[in-house]
Amino acid sequence: MAQARGYAAHSPTSGLSPIDFERRELRPDDVAIEIDYCGVCHSDIHFVENDWGITRYPVVPGHEIVGRVTAVGADVRQYQPGDIVGVGCLVDSCRQCEACESGLEQYCLEGSTGTYNGIDRHDGTVTFGGYSNRVVASERFVVKIPDTLDPANAAPILCAGITTYSPLRHYGVKAGDRVGVIGMGGLGHMGVKFAKALGAEVTLFTRSAGKVEEARKQGADHVIISTDPEQMKAAREQFDFMLDTIPAQHDFNPYLQCLKFDGTHIIVGLLEPIDHAIHAAHLVGKRRVLAGSLIGGMPETQEVLDFCAEHDIRCDIEMLDMANIHEAYERMKRGDVKYRFVIDMKSLNHA
Amino acid sequence: MAQARGYAAHSPTSGLSPIDFERRELRPDDVAIEIDYCGVCHSDIHFVENDWGITRYPVVPGHEIVGRVTAVGADVRQYQPGDIVGVGCLVDSCRQCEACESGLEQYCLEGSTGTYNGIDRHDGTVTFGGYSNRVVASERFVVKIPDTLDPANAAPILCAGITTYSPLRHYGVKAGDRVGVIGMGGLGHMGVKFAKALGAEVTLFTRSAGKVEEARKQGADHVIISTDPEQMKAAREQFDFMLDTIPAQHDFNPYLQCLKFDGTHIIVGLLEPIDHAIHAAHLVGKRRVLAGSLIGGMPETQEVLDFCAEHDIRCDIEMLDMANIHEAYERMKRGDVKYRFVIDMKSLNHA
Ligand SMILES: [Zn+2]
Ligand SMILES: [Zn+2]
Ligand SMILES: [Zn+2]
Ligand SMILES: [Zn+2]
Repeated sequence: MAQARGYAAHSPTSGLSPIDFERRELRPDDVAIEIDYCGVCHSDIHFVENDWGITRYPVVPGHEIVGRVTAVGADVRQYQPGDIVGVGCLVDSCRQCEACESGLEQYCLEGSTGTYNGIDRHDGTVTFGGYSNRVVASERFVVKIPDTLDPANAAPILCAGITTYSPLRHYGVKAGDRVGVIGMGGLGHMGVKFAKALGAEVTLFTRSAGKVEEARKQGADHVIISTDPEQMKAAREQFDFMLDTIPAQHDFNPYLQCLKFDGTHIIVGLLEPIDHAIHAAHLVGKRRVLAGSLIGGMPETQEVLDFCAEHDIRCDIEMLDMANIHEAYERMKRGDVKYRFVIDMKSLNHA
Repeated sequence: MAQARGYAAHSPTSGLSPIDFERRELRPDDVAIEIDYCGVCHSDIHFVENDWGITRYPVVPGHEIVGRVTAVGADVRQYQPGDIVGVGCLVDSCRQCEACESGLEQYCLEGSTGTYNGIDRHDGTVTFGGYSNRVVASERFVVKIPDTLDPANAAPILCAGITTYSPLRHYGVKAGDRVGVIGMGGLGHMGVKFAKALGAEVTLFTRSAGKVEEARKQGADHVIISTDPEQMKAAREQFDFMLDTIPAQHDFNPYLQCLKFDGTHIIVGLLEPIDHAIHAAHLVGKRRVLAGSLIGGMPETQEVLDFCAEHDIRCDIEMLDMANIHEAYERMKRGDVKYRFVIDMKSLNHA
């Protein structure tokens, strides 16, 4: 066992505070990683505050982990000490179902194991995430960070990046397609970059006129202010795809109407009941599709990292000391971050 | 002009009564048809009673028309007098947009012209449907009824048939797929037959235990009583496709949960807001798809007729005299028809 230090929440209202715990001895397929950076995802807040009613306390959040390999188990073939690697949202799955065999571990028929708040399939312990100085994960769930990517920048690709990249690839977004990206937070700004890199004509939909300039800087060809009925009307039946990154309740109908016939609206940001009734005629009348997509499997997580290296795509980040995590959460709740906080794990030493 | 006789509603509460009107002189691409049979679709009731607020009175319903060609315009090449032909839901479209060029006239970017309650693109008159003794339609919107199909049986294929066939084909339902068909009315019982003919393992979902025997007779391999929580729970993540033919409000969530990851729920029966909130997690968590589909284009309407001939598929019908249309509507509202009323247009002579 290795002594580890991290930040944990002990109840929905406790906030996060330092915790000492142990990381397991290496199993034959395990990689031990010294964590350098960990991105801060909205899910972290939901788990800390038990918004989904499934939190197992104490919870050590963090699933956008980048660090250096310090040791490997006897059977590990892909990694060796010194390698810069990443761990994303998953650390295990059944590995043998139809989904796992297709490299879609996130849809494992037996349920995948989350990087934190999951139950280890071997010893039954609760998994602890990346708000910590070290982590141990099976080599199948470890990805290589390409040399040309900045490790801190690469961290959010492991959740925000793959979440937006995967559906664009799955639905075959290609040169010339018209893609609308709804919302420009951590997910949305990555969606704009990916859709653009895939050759699409990209329109950002935002409620805030203040984001127009910024959206163009991120690569959007056009910006539509979604609160302007005139602009929304002009956008009707213009899009092949909508990538909906909004994490809160909103009315899907105006966006569905922006799709051409056979167009696809992809939900990646919402995990709740859709409280504005979807009008079936918007789907039936134009053979439109409403779809969801969840992070990505391990092969595609490696692919998106390589894609980012190849296309020089990086997540815009703001570096954060571990001790300032509460302030970061408050700012995230206000949408006040461009576009992802990344914890510099060296700061844990002083915390 | 040719004198025609039909049945029309003059207001939401007038009911239907005989009407004399004129069918246009043949344009060069027109086919004149003496109507033998016309199926009765739920849409007919909605238009008669102005449920969708778009009815233009007087309305002569009917868009499942089968009859004999009596004359053709100078440019008509495919048909000649004596041919047994059909006219379905559409009689025109722009013919040159992306949708029309793909044979998907139902999604015409300029809007297609309905067989009734539409506006003729040339003379601006309101189109009158198949509750009448004759009709005139452009050859592009006329289909050939295969010799081996009974003409009366073939009529409902033009709406109920194509509506269920088209999405099964579009989504590539194939041998070995597990298909759930929700509801067993006019659409549902055709959906069962088509899915079965495509080689799928077919399960009918129905609220009514009384339909089990009948569903098996129609070809369903299994029947699930959707009001039984145990049966619904056992069905979770078992299906590749759900063909949802229910024309009334219902909760989609239990059915979405019956889909495997990457499964598709296809709406063909509902054109209203979905009043039970769809849980986004059911889509996101398993990359499921909620899709709609509307009738079918002209090439596919011909295809489904040929498919029915080849596979000996017929719609179960109950023959109806025109004068009994109100009784038929009442029975349809109660779900008391197996499975489609077809008006014998000879009865119009005595009406
Ligand atoms: Zn995340
Ligand atoms: Zn699995
Ligand atoms: Zn119909
Ligand atoms: Zn068209």
